[in-house]
Amino acid sequence: MELDKEERSRVLVIGGTGHIGKHIVAASIHHGHSTSVLIRDATPSDLAKAQLLTSFVDSGVALIKGDLFNHESLVKAIKSTDIVISAVGPRQLAEQTRIVTAIKEAGNVKRFLLSEFGSDVERVHTVDPVASLYAGKVNLRRLIEAEGIPHTYVCCNGFAETYLPSIGDVTAVGAGPPSDKITVLGDGDAKAVFVVEEDIAVYTIRAIDDPRTLNKILYMRPPANIVSHNELISMWETKTGKTLQIARIPEVDLLEWIKEAAFPLNILLSLALSIFVRGDQANFEIEPSFGVEATELYPDVKYTTVDEYLTRLL
Amino acid sequence: MELDKEERSRVLVIGGTGHIGKHIVAASIHHGHSTSVLIRDATPSDLAKAQLLTSFVDSGVALIKGDLFNHESLVKAIKSTDIVISAVGPRQLAEQTRIVTAIKEAGNVKRFLLSEFGSDVERVHTVDPVASLYAGKVNLRRLIEAEGIPHTYVCCNGFAETYLPSIGDVTAVGAGPPSDKITVLGDGDAKAVFVVEEDIAVYTIRAIDDPRTLNKILYMRPPANIVSHNELISMWETKTGKTLQIARIPEVDLLEWIKEAAFPLNILLSLALSIFVRGDQANFEIEPSFGVEATELYPDVKYTTVDEYLTRLL
Repeated sequence: MELDKEERSRVLVIGGTGHIGKHIVAASIHHGHSTSVLIRDATPSDLAKAQLLTSFVDSGVALIKGDLFNHESLVKAIKSTDIVISAVGPRQLAEQTRIVTAIKEAGNVKRFLLSEFGSDVERVHTVDPVASLYAGKVNLRRLIEAEGIPHTYVCCNGFAETYLPSIGDVTAVGAGPPSDKITVLGDGDAKAVFVVEEDIAVYTIRAIDDPRTLNKILYMRPPANIVSHNELISMWETKTGKTLQIARIPEVDLLEWIKEAAFPLNILLSLALSIFVRGDQANFEIEPSFGVEATELYPDVKYTTVDEYLTRLL
Repeated sequence: MELDKEERSRVLVIGGTGHIGKHIVAASIHHGHSTSVLIRDATPSDLAKAQLLTSFVDSGVALIKGDLFNHESLVKAIKSTDIVISAVGPRQLAEQTRIVTAIKEAGNVKRFLLSEFGSDVERVHTVDPVASLYAGKVNLRRLIEAEGIPHTYVCCNGFAETYLPSIGDVTAVGAGPPSDKITVLGDGDAKAVFVVEEDIAVYTIRAIDDPRTLNKILYMRPPANIVSHNELISMWETKTGKTLQIARIPEVDLLEWIKEAAFPLNILLSLALSIFVRGDQANFEIEPSFGVEATELYPDVKYTTVDEYLTRLL
């Protein structure tokens, strides 16, 4: 059954020009939702952002001037939507309390999606500096639960674009594929989960007005994309026909390194401890009491596999 | 003229177990200052930190229980010192207002060193997310100036341990030396400055009771350590006898990449824009009205050159 556009939920994205936000905006429009994006400055000085905003407008997105720090603008934007999706970056996580206040005042929001888009912050085992960042996200969950705001927490696990180009080597996170050596943290056997950004956006948009995801955690664990670092390296070696020299860093040494490392390497390493060493993205069962899994809910979505993504890197 | 220990300034380090803090504690003790470190927990559960604290005590450091969020503990610790050096990490930068409040109340501090230890945040040209971090540091400078607190801002420029092991490739900041390819941001000709952590600590300690550094910026620009990325790569190629394949990313593409990149790669890239593309560590004259240069003030300090550091990496 196809719904008319008028019957579909209206979507407001805050942080819609960011890494994951822009994909969510695209998916929302593609799925026929009236979509608006909160924009601080409708005529940005930089070209890339201007082009993105132009593409939004061309595809039918409404740009709404406003920002987190302007309460009136926020309430006004929220009053004209059904669903609020926050995709703000780490620096603005704490400021989401301003969105909560505005949602309470507006009183009409059917679902609020906090900016999560990572591991389940209540089921991670890591250390500072990332532990504190995650603690802030947990506090936000408690706040919107206390306020009784209908919500879905989207735990998409690892962004493919962050981790896969370096074949999972977080010490080389922007460097592209390794040519002869790679660093593995821990024994490399813990399972991690990687999801391509476009797919994260599609699953997110599918979930926003699905009663099965109401007040639940939506996990993304595409079966073909749950892989250990060792497996990921093997897949890459098979594709390239070249064997990589692996430098293994035991967990105990990684813990010391995190303390020694200067900002921002310490951030990357404490993220990696959770994902690659402790396997926090796949080391627990998703119980119906708290969560649902995206590929089970939406089996018709044809997601990009890790294998396909690696082929693109060749 | 050697001063007795009794005549030397007493030093309190806040953040003394961190990346640069632990070197400052060591240098302070080595230079004969009564040195204390504010410690949240004197019996940490992790081995690395416990070992560090033991080594502090063995070398004569006084551990003082207290933290930023306990005002009384802070005032008490500050009342027993002459110099306060903050070396707190990025997450606690803003909390340094608590130190300012405590210093005002204590009323006895001869010099306060904010946690700077990077580029001169008033002479950088970068974009978010790092631009916001730097703006916070600028605010702190204005605050302590408004409060009339005697100070020195230590702009040590680039930590050697952060940038040199990957031969200046910030996309591979924890990965160690490149074996065949390296990423260069911009044209690679902007001059950056790298200083080994132990030397940063020595210059810092030399400056704390030097009248020439009072209410000034102490820059570290060791002449042998002012090098462009291209020069750094050439030095490494000469040492290894191997030529690296260079992938160049123009500034305009880097600016787009920063917007696209997820946390925390976007932090690394916006730091790199300032250091490697725009040359913010060496693209201005140090005027006597605002600054002094460490190797000119302390020519007797034999610093580690970039060349020597690279040799250690072989």
